[in-house]
Amino acid sequence: MKQTDTPSTLLMIFGATGDLAKRKLYPSLFHLFNKGKISKDFAVIGVARREWTEEQFKKHVEDSVLTSIGTKENIDEFISHFYYQSHDVSDSESYITLKNLADSLDNKYNLHGNRIFYLAMAPEFFGTITDHLKSDGLTDTQGFHRLVIEKPFGHDLPSAEQLNNQIRESFTEDQIYRIDHYLGKEMVQNIEVIRFANALFEPLWNSRYISNIQVTSSEELGVEERGRYYEKSGALRDMVQNHMLQMVALLAMEPPIKLTTEEIRGEKVKVLRALRPLKDDEVKDYFVRGQYGPNETGGRGYRQEPNVDPNSNTETYVAGKLMIDNFRWAGVPIYIRTGKRMETKSTKIVIQFKDIPMNLYYNRDKPLAPNLLVIHIQPDEGITLHLNAKKSGQNVETTPVKLNFSNNSVDGMNTPEAYEKLLHDCMRGDATNFTHWDDVKLSWAYVDKISEVWETTKETEFPNYCAGTAGPKAADELLEKDGFYWWPIDNLDVDNC
Amino acid sequence: MKQTDTPSTLLMIFGATGDLAKRKLYPSLFHLFNKGKISKDFAVIGVARREWTEEQFKKHVEDSVLTSIGTKENIDEFISHFYYQSHDVSDSESYITLKNLADSLDNKYNLHGNRIFYLAMAPEFFGTITDHLKSDGLTDTQGFHRLVIEKPFGHDLPSAEQLNNQIRESFTEDQIYRIDHYLGKEMVQNIEVIRFANALFEPLWNSRYISNIQVTSSEELGVEERGRYYEKSGALRDMVQNHMLQMVALLAMEPPIKLTTEEIRGEKVKVLRALRPLKDDEVKDYFVRGQYGPNETGGRGYRQEPNVDPNSNTETYVAGKLMIDNFRWAGVPIYIRTGKRMETKSTKIVIQFKDIPMNLYYNRDKPLAPNLLVIHIQPDEGITLHLNAKKSGQNVETTPVKLNFSNNSVDGMNTPEAYEKLLHDCMRGDATNFTHWDDVKLSWAYVDKISEVWETTKETEFPNYCAGTAGPKAADELLEKDGFYWWPIDNLDVDNC
Repeated sequence: MKQTDTPSTLLMIFGATGDLAKRKLYPSLFHLFNKGKISKDFAVIGVARREWTEEQFKKHVEDSVLTSIGTKENIDEFISHFYYQSHDVSDSESYITLKNLADSLDNKYNLHGNRIFYLAMAPEFFGTITDHLKSDGLTDTQGFHRLVIEKPFGHDLPSAEQLNNQIRESFTEDQIYRIDHYLGKEMVQNIEVIRFANALFEPLWNSRYISNIQVTSSEELGVEERGRYYEKSGALRDMVQNHMLQMVALLAMEPPIKLTTEEIRGEKVKVLRALRPLKDDEVKDYFVRGQYGPNETGGRGYRQEPNVDPNSNTETYVAGKLMIDNFRWAGVPIYIRTGKRMETKSTKIVIQFKDIPMNLYYNRDKPLAPNLLVIHIQPDEGITLHLNAKKSGQNVETTPVKLNFSNNSVDGMNTPEAYEKLLHDCMRGDATNFTHWDDVKLSWAYVDKISEVWETTKETEFPNYCAGTAGPKAADELLEKDGFYWWPIDNLDVDNC
Repeated sequence: MKQTDTPSTLLMIFGATGDLAKRKLYPSLFHLFNKGKISKDFAVIGVARREWTEEQFKKHVEDSVLTSIGTKENIDEFISHFYYQSHDVSDSESYITLKNLADSLDNKYNLHGNRIFYLAMAPEFFGTITDHLKSDGLTDTQGFHRLVIEKPFGHDLPSAEQLNNQIRESFTEDQIYRIDHYLGKEMVQNIEVIRFANALFEPLWNSRYISNIQVTSSEELGVEERGRYYEKSGALRDMVQNHMLQMVALLAMEPPIKLTTEEIRGEKVKVLRALRPLKDDEVKDYFVRGQYGPNETGGRGYRQEPNVDPNSNTETYVAGKLMIDNFRWAGVPIYIRTGKRMETKSTKIVIQFKDIPMNLYYNRDKPLAPNLLVIHIQPDEGITLHLNAKKSGQNVETTPVKLNFSNNSVDGMNTPEAYEKLLHDCMRGDATNFTHWDDVKLSWAYVDKISEVWETTKETEFPNYCAGTAGPKAADELLEKDGFYWWPIDNLDVDNC
């Protein structure tokens, strides 16, 4: 990496009074500031519609830090870098005022014209804002200009292409940082290291030794107040198109030549290109949708949530089987599942290895448990290896054992928040853990086929799983017909035997 | 296994008043008895020179159980099965009296003539005893007859052959159970399961993926009161010829067709046959000897021990490099080391995997740590896997992590003593974990070459390591010239990071 660790930067946050900025961005910036990872030469302009004073805004930032972190050490110095502008996103005058403020801060803090525009707001304004940023001269400085965009990036391939084309009028692809906060998670980044820094796994990471891969990302919560957005999105667009496919790409990619942004992205894109496309009548064989219904303990069903159609056809759960038709993965199913109102909040990857060529222990005991590598992503972070050992005692009987590594135990404190990492990456100009347009395009192309079929066929079984359960039965059958089942995986800290 | 788990048996222990019987055999029998693993139809005749009464002997057994286990639950019923005969090993009359006692117990306990003769005594009497057992008719019954022999089995190949020939006059090879108590240890038996019941290791268990193997068995104690024996033996005969080579054979053997005694022994023998033999002038390149000297805290040197020659040339430490010249292991050194008066009491096996083909992380950080599989045999029992993971934090730096499995945590209690397992195996007729004559023969042939050279060249550097240290410097150099070093391996319970 050639970038300075902490280049001076002017960060403009559009949507500065919103929820994301409050919960994630200000606490993350504060962490980076206190760790000395931000240059002292920095300034933040909060941009939003509300008519706040600068004092109000600073108080808001301070409150968000306090709420999230519980300390206010150095807070005064920190918020002294914060500025606010009440803004109308479609009015050039607003942008010109913003430009003047930006230019003056540029001088005041010696920022070399380096600017990051963080769009932490509803996507319908993305295009308007980027148009104005260019036309009103905010990108007319010497330094770097980076645009950070939150998901969703479009609603399907055509809308994503339209949005991308509009943004690309003002920013080049390498200036665009599409946030996928899963890619900021420590253990997701660890997938790469586990694979490429361990001689033990590298030779086994292919169809000869791996039987199947299972990626699960489940949430306990329902849609909460996001019913309006979710009705138009559903789990497929909200989770599969981005987070799930990104994790699959990391798991399945070829070793890159170097660990540079371009090389890693290039390999990830190749995975998405090798994804077996589905025909209309194959969707039902490869994908299962679910929608949560009320449960016996009074849990609401999806159709009873605020702003949700009482006859909604929107899926809150997706399970799928992906086939990657390349040399490495031919014949190895990668199963994914994600849903709301599941039993637990948990993101885990299970790599199931093929059985040994001959089970010497078969007749002595029960069938041998297969070896599993489990990558725990959240809430716990770590690795578990499921092996077989000799059962303690007289006979040669095998018993499954677990070897655990908990990431939390290394430094005894929580790993950095995904947003903290991604913000810092963006400041340093490292786009590795952001999504490239090629990924977005291929993911939408894959997912659109499934949406098309699902939108044109009403699922008469909805709701098909109770809130707080493991999802619809059809998701189990998806694996059963291949002779597999979803591995129930405990959290890391539960036990060791 | 077709054998009944607990066939009725008459066990005759020669050397019944000795140390081994007291420390190991009686407590182990008591454990088996209390676990219901011995048929109620059993009897034990203690045989020894001393003129003890049966009451004295029973008291002795009771005391040994109490001392070792700390409980006397069911002790009365247990010792009711014990009998004693004062015995002269070279006098036929003694054997005839013994036969009469045995025959009467056979009737009394309905033992079907099943007899185990356990020679827990000095090896010079082995031949005499087995001659008499046959000639005086103790093996003239319907049931099974098994001979259990403690080490040492000979002093070199010629003496071992002579002893074997004599014993074989009275017992067939499949009636002879040569004890190697390392083979009774849970984690030594686990080597087989780790290798053959885990798809993760099986494909990597060869010269393509394994860089070297390190087997360490160190003791904190010195020779104690065994100076007289040890002067004639030394570490090479005392440890390498049996325990160390047996562990190497288990680590390196090909997968057997079945897990039967014959198949496993057959594969182990093939390893010993593939051991690269040493020429006289090669011994110094492959083997290092050590002898402990006094240390600064008042620890005695070997030459100051009782019954040891003040100019002794006997080694108390051996390190060696074994090459197994077969397809699987060509070019992979297997390093062994064993010594007395080392820093710690510890038996461990380290399998070091080769580096990954290309280190993507090289320039980012320090060189990558290789992957290690550690099999902990004693004092702790378990497996540790050393992998690399992402260092928690911003950059992609790797950090070594450990995945632990502690055998003790499975059932929360100690695993059975090696002797308990081996006694039970012998009663069931399972000879898998006893040493076959072919092993003994090949091991002596290998070791004899080294002894020859060492006995004819006085080591002028002796003593060459201080009591309580890690052994002679030359043992480090043995690996250094191959570009390796002995891995310092913590105990399992120390920490997890």
